[in-house]
Amino acid sequence: MELIRTLTQLVNNLRSLGIRRRVAVVCPNDPHTEYVIIRSLREEIAEYLLVTDEAHVEIAHNLRAASPDFVRVYITSTPDEAAALAVELVRTGEADILMKGLINTDNLLRAVLKKEKGLLPPGGVLSHVAVAQIPLYHKLLLFSDAAVIPRPGLLQFRAMIANDIAICRKLGNDQPRVALIHCSEKVNEKFPHTLDYVQLKEEAQLGRFGSVFVDGPMDAKTACDRHSGEIKGLSSPVIGNADIMIFPNIESGNTFYKTLSLFGDANMAGMLTGTIAPVVVPSRSDSGNSKFYSLALACMAGNQND
Amino acid sequence: MELIRTLTQLVNNLRSLGIRRRVAVVCPNDPHTEYVIIRSLREEIAEYLLVTDEAHVEIAHNLRAASPDFVRVYITSTPDEAAALAVELVRTGEADILMKGLINTDNLLRAVLKKEKGLLPPGGVLSHVAVAQIPLYHKLLLFSDAAVIPRPGLLQFRAMIANDIAICRKLGNDQPRVALIHCSEKVNEKFPHTLDYVQLKEEAQLGRFGSVFVDGPMDAKTACDRHSGEIKGLSSPVIGNADIMIFPNIESGNTFYKTLSLFGDANMAGMLTGTIAPVVVPSRSDSGNSKFYSLALACMAGNQND
Repeated sequence: MELIRTLTQLVNNLRSLGIRRRVAVVCPNDPHTEYVIIRSLREEIAEYLLVTDEAHVEIAHNLRAASPDFVRVYITSTPDEAAALAVELVRTGEADILMKGLINTDNLLRAVLKKEKGLLPPGGVLSHVAVAQIPLYHKLLLFSDAAVIPRPGLLQFRAMIANDIAICRKLGNDQPRVALIHCSEKVNEKFPHTLDYVQLKEEAQLGRFGSVFVDGPMDAKTACDRHSGEIKGLSSPVIGNADIMIFPNIESGNTFYKTLSLFGDANMAGMLTGTIAPVVVPSRSDSGNSKFYSLALACMAGNQND
Repeated sequence: MELIRTLTQLVNNLRSLGIRRRVAVVCPNDPHTEYVIIRSLREEIAEYLLVTDEAHVEIAHNLRAASPDFVRVYITSTPDEAAALAVELVRTGEADILMKGLINTDNLLRAVLKKEKGLLPPGGVLSHVAVAQIPLYHKLLLFSDAAVIPRPGLLQFRAMIANDIAICRKLGNDQPRVALIHCSEKVNEKFPHTLDYVQLKEEAQLGRFGSVFVDGPMDAKTACDRHSGEIKGLSSPVIGNADIMIFPNIESGNTFYKTLSLFGDANMAGMLTGTIAPVVVPSRSDSGNSKFYSLALACMAGNQND
């Protein structure tokens, strides 16, 4: 398939493929969620299974009235029951994607992570992936983890890399370039993640992640700016040309996300992965565009069986 | 004095004050350092004590030949001796600022941190401060630590805040707003820096840092975007209006620096502080502008006795 270079192209691509993903929404009871649902229905990229508690049925009923062919409504007693039912709809294959509405994120994640009844396969690692469309970068940039894993260890780094690579491939990139981020190029035992990076590079060379380039440690600028690498006498297929950035901790990943969206004038999409189906958890401070693109990203990622 | 809102204004302000700082440069043997020296001489904000090893005297001699009234040259046997002599010139009050040329940063810092013969007062904490002029922000933004302190503890957070506030005041800001950065607003013992933040806020309220506002934990976007705070139902004098951002670790501070300069189209300045005089350590991948503004920032910060 063609390489997807912008979030608009991602949406157009979904439309042209004629794929409508089935999205189970937990508590679609706020105007932001309503906006994403209406826009994605208009773009013809999704259909909806709206699961809401009985105290908040109005928006769900209105959405169904407007698009009866593409919206079904399920009513439960409580938001927690709505979360459990929506997860069950994904588990049983009736829905392809889970999306959060007006419910506490912790409560939603409790249902997602529930043993045997949740969405995380045995041994799976839940991680967050963000996709940024940055005016001053020449392609989409994926990165992890801005939201879920506080201090990745080797096992989690492996999962983050594998999860991000899988999404990169769905975006038409057959040989992703993965930058392992630090504040410099030096491997230093005082920073244990740099030791993990050495191991991960070796594993990548042995083929663990398939056809990829993995390099690091390097700082965020060196990953995306060839000139910075040249000044330091560094060159590799990754330097200045990263498709994926793996951050050493949640504070740096989150700072990258927030700085891009606020000062880099970037359009952002994000979702949870590692689960048997994508989970869309929009952040309150995301723009409407960002929330819609997050759903579109999940639609493109599809489920593990695609 | 007037509030300084841009780096150009900072330079103009120095000129109009008629201050020429005396800058001791260790090994001014590369074109980047030469550029900064020539530009600051032309702007009339500095005069120079160039300390170089005997194998690399050409640039220093040329600079002296061009500006004999404002350039002196000192020659030593080795770069390490040049570092020691330049530090000594600052210690004895013959220079106001130390600047790095073509010498390994670790070697320079060894001379700066040398007990009794270095530039760090007893009990002092060396930290890095950066000043960013960001097109999408309404004022200069200071932050720490992108370069020196890997994992600040309470003692180091205190020093970083105090160091940054001192510079903010030199830029004409009498009541700086300090944001303590994390990935969310939640205090959580799994993130020990958020517990330090609680303590630091209490200390600020008790007057430890003088006339300031200190708030956090908060993410980088909430610190600089009032709208993000409003959505979360948060408001304070700091939210959306930070003058200073304190990062929880070097990876997040460094990521902020690199992302602003690469994708935020920002002009950056930076220096080391906590020492008896500013130390300018330009990063190889900084632009020429950034290196010059770093020197100008140091000139404005002056020394502790100003």
